[in-house]
Amino acid sequence: MNQLLVSPTDFIATDRVRISDRRLQHLNQIHKASVGQSLRAGCLNGLQGEATILAIDQQAAELQLNLHSQPPAKLPLTLILALPRPKMLRRTLQTIASMGVNTLVLINSYRVEKSFWQTPFLQPDAINAELILGLEQARDTVLPEVILAKRFKPFVEDELPALAVNTRGIIAHPGDYPECPRALTEPVTLAIGPEGGWIPYEVDLLAQAGLQPVQIGERILRVETAVPALLARLF
Amino acid sequence: MNQLLVSPTDFIATDRVRISDRRLQHLNQIHKASVGQSLRAGCLNGLQGEATILAIDQQAAELQLNLHSQPPAKLPLTLILALPRPKMLRRTLQTIASMGVNTLVLINSYRVEKSFWQTPFLQPDAINAELILGLEQARDTVLPEVILAKRFKPFVEDELPALAVNTRGIIAHPGDYPECPRALTEPVTLAIGPEGGWIPYEVDLLAQAGLQPVQIGERILRVETAVPALLARLF
Repeated sequence: MNQLLVSPTDFIATDRVRISDRRLQHLNQIHKASVGQSLRAGCLNGLQGEATILAIDQQAAELQLNLHSQPPAKLPLTLILALPRPKMLRRTLQTIASMGVNTLVLINSYRVEKSFWQTPFLQPDAINAELILGLEQARDTVLPEVILAKRFKPFVEDELPALAVNTRGIIAHPGDYPECPRALTEPVTLAIGPEGGWIPYEVDLLAQAGLQPVQIGERILRVETAVPALLARLF
Repeated sequence: MNQLLVSPTDFIATDRVRISDRRLQHLNQIHKASVGQSLRAGCLNGLQGEATILAIDQQAAELQLNLHSQPPAKLPLTLILALPRPKMLRRTLQTIASMGVNTLVLINSYRVEKSFWQTPFLQPDAINAELILGLEQARDTVLPEVILAKRFKPFVEDELPALAVNTRGIIAHPGDYPECPRALTEPVTLAIGPEGGWIPYEVDLLAQAGLQPVQIGERILRVETAVPALLARLF
């Protein structure tokens, strides 16, 4: 927890919060926090700055906030990600938030197991919990927008063209394609497939929506490795 | 398991192996493998190609090998990594092998908890087990060299200069430093610090050994995210 992230429901006055959940445990156990101590803080989807501990015990902590700075800029990126298996989903959500992805679309694909859509980790609160861990890690405050696209074809045909308009559209796909570009400054729409990759029909539909296949070499990476690798290369 | 990786002890003839461990389970349960089926295979630290199943049941499988191709090229990289906590170590070892790191130095740092050096996951067999998972994932066969440097100063003063000679030396470190370079083709020695970063004394010693600090932006990434991000940016 490189930053204490507070949300509107934590406030007990304009500039004061009271917390009593895992963040309190972290302050007590990891930070060994005591009254008067100051730490980095941010308000969810808002400013960041410092918080000073006014009172703390095993039940709750009260902190005075001094928030004055904008969070770091987001990547101008819409990431279209074939839904990973639940365990990988959780870590990947953290990575996506910590690297500053603006919009995430979790999408179905022929090679996504149907059961993955049943995981409780796709509940909005569960998604937000992982994203918040990523924001705390990276000292950001702004949640990425998350869209669940349980049906591939309607999303790619009806919604993706509008999302991808005026962006550089890229499909990460192994094969005889151009190399993935580097150090882009323009907005990007990036599609990353499931284990085993997109099927040709899916690549075709994504291409019709304006995305072009690129490759990043012959090594096959797990999604949790491919995501940071592609983002670091693109921006 | 994108590739079946066999080792010299699996051979029962020049071009034939017998396996009976987790790889057999994987063949039975995930691949639903049957006699006559062919799959990608490689020999540890050797060639890669295909294996054809000659016999398979719940106890063992026998496969005929046809190995003819060189594995993918390694990254010309010596990665000096402050020892991560055990859980993160395991995943990071997989990532390092799958991305093709040539040499890994796990090193102590002021901010590495002493207990991390006691983990059973640092036993040579345990390290190799994780590296092999990474090689299977990426369809590589060649284990990275792994060096354990339990004492920072003697390693950096006495051994690092020889390792880093004729390479581009880089320290990933937050702060007012030049941007991390991109798309290098020369050999690189890259040092990545622990949670909380290198201390100034450590940065100084690394600099004396020929490494220069660079930064990759204000977001603080977990080591398992920073490693693929830095590697994808550098090469």
